[in-house]
Amino acid sequence: MNEAGRFITLEGGEGAGKSTLITGLQAELERKGLTVCVTREPGGTTLAEKVRALALNPPSDETWSPLSHALLMNTSRADHLEKRIRPALARGEWVLCDRFADSTRAYQSIDGVPTETLLTIERAVVAETRPHLTLILDADPAALAERRQQRGTQDVFEAKDLRFHETVRAAFLAIAEAEPDRCVVIDALQSPPQVLAMALDAISTRLGLA
Amino acid sequence: MNEAGRFITLEGGEGAGKSTLITGLQAELERKGLTVCVTREPGGTTLAEKVRALALNPPSDETWSPLSHALLMNTSRADHLEKRIRPALARGEWVLCDRFADSTRAYQSIDGVPTETLLTIERAVVAETRPHLTLILDADPAALAERRQQRGTQDVFEAKDLRFHETVRAAFLAIAEAEPDRCVVIDALQSPPQVLAMALDAISTRLGLA
Repeated sequence: MNEAGRFITLEGGEGAGKSTLITGLQAELERKGLTVCVTREPGGTTLAEKVRALALNPPSDETWSPLSHALLMNTSRADHLEKRIRPALARGEWVLCDRFADSTRAYQSIDGVPTETLLTIERAVVAETRPHLTLILDADPAALAERRQQRGTQDVFEAKDLRFHETVRAAFLAIAEAEPDRCVVIDALQSPPQVLAMALDAISTRLGLA
Repeated sequence: MNEAGRFITLEGGEGAGKSTLITGLQAELERKGLTVCVTREPGGTTLAEKVRALALNPPSDETWSPLSHALLMNTSRADHLEKRIRPALARGEWVLCDRFADSTRAYQSIDGVPTETLLTIERAVVAETRPHLTLILDADPAALAERRQQRGTQDVFEAKDLRFHETVRAAFLAIAEAEPDRCVVIDALQSPPQVLAMALDAISTRLGLA
């Protein structure tokens, strides 16, 4: 990559603590004098948020096929990359992105889109802007479900059952196993300070941050 | 393909007479006792029309990148194929579609999306449902521009200039040259009855319609 900045993505099931970790990482990186761009997918730009809304809330009685949903996620991603992530990296910023292409790989492959199709579209959209580091927050879905219930949050993925979340977990672990140079798996059931410490250690080791 | 029906797409620049030809073809095919499904892209289903609206009319001050636009066209296409075209073909109907994947190839490649990227996404979306026959209505853009002006119609493509339309024409002719088994080029400056006669001849020759 030509960009001067660093691109870090956070992945994992709902309730794994991605938001908390991003808040902690942002503070630590800024303390080191880095400019940090915090963003999320699907979304992150005006048009990407429009696509997100259409993807997550189609008109009543209508449903997206898994392939259509994957294409919408990639449309959102293309706009996000073009207008926010690549410009930030070009300015030398450190981008922390809550979910990215691995989420599309994981969720849409479970929904039945062939992995090769997903990877093909991903390659076209992501091109050279692959994450330098992906932190995968991993935990037993039953324990995460308990956290979700405590939070009282609910979205399109959370409505699904435990078996689904186990499949999502396995999908993320498979990605980590296939791309060990890019991915670091972190035990999400540790305390937030412990999770943050492990993430900073991975950033230090993998990206050479002092 | 396993489908019992036939899938015919019509391509060409704005004002080339695709709508008139489709009306004529529908009447002729129905006269032969066939069930005809007339549809168009982008659009053709509730969700595809939503995507079409978002693609053609983004919120003010926002523009889609060519890649994002191509992904939206393919999202629309995926829904259209799944919910309308494939079911119609499975029922044995003859599908007449005003614009299809070749339009995305032509317009988005002109906008700068690499052809290989467009073909890769197209293959994932279209899969086995490639058109049996594509009728390309071809004409000198200056003559078509005159027709457009007479009609008084205007859309996102029509606002562009003659040079653009010449490039579009060349893109469609290149597709026809690359896939002669699927594509038939028809001189769109002939009279509507002549255009219809040539289209019926192509259908007869290529698809064996008596």
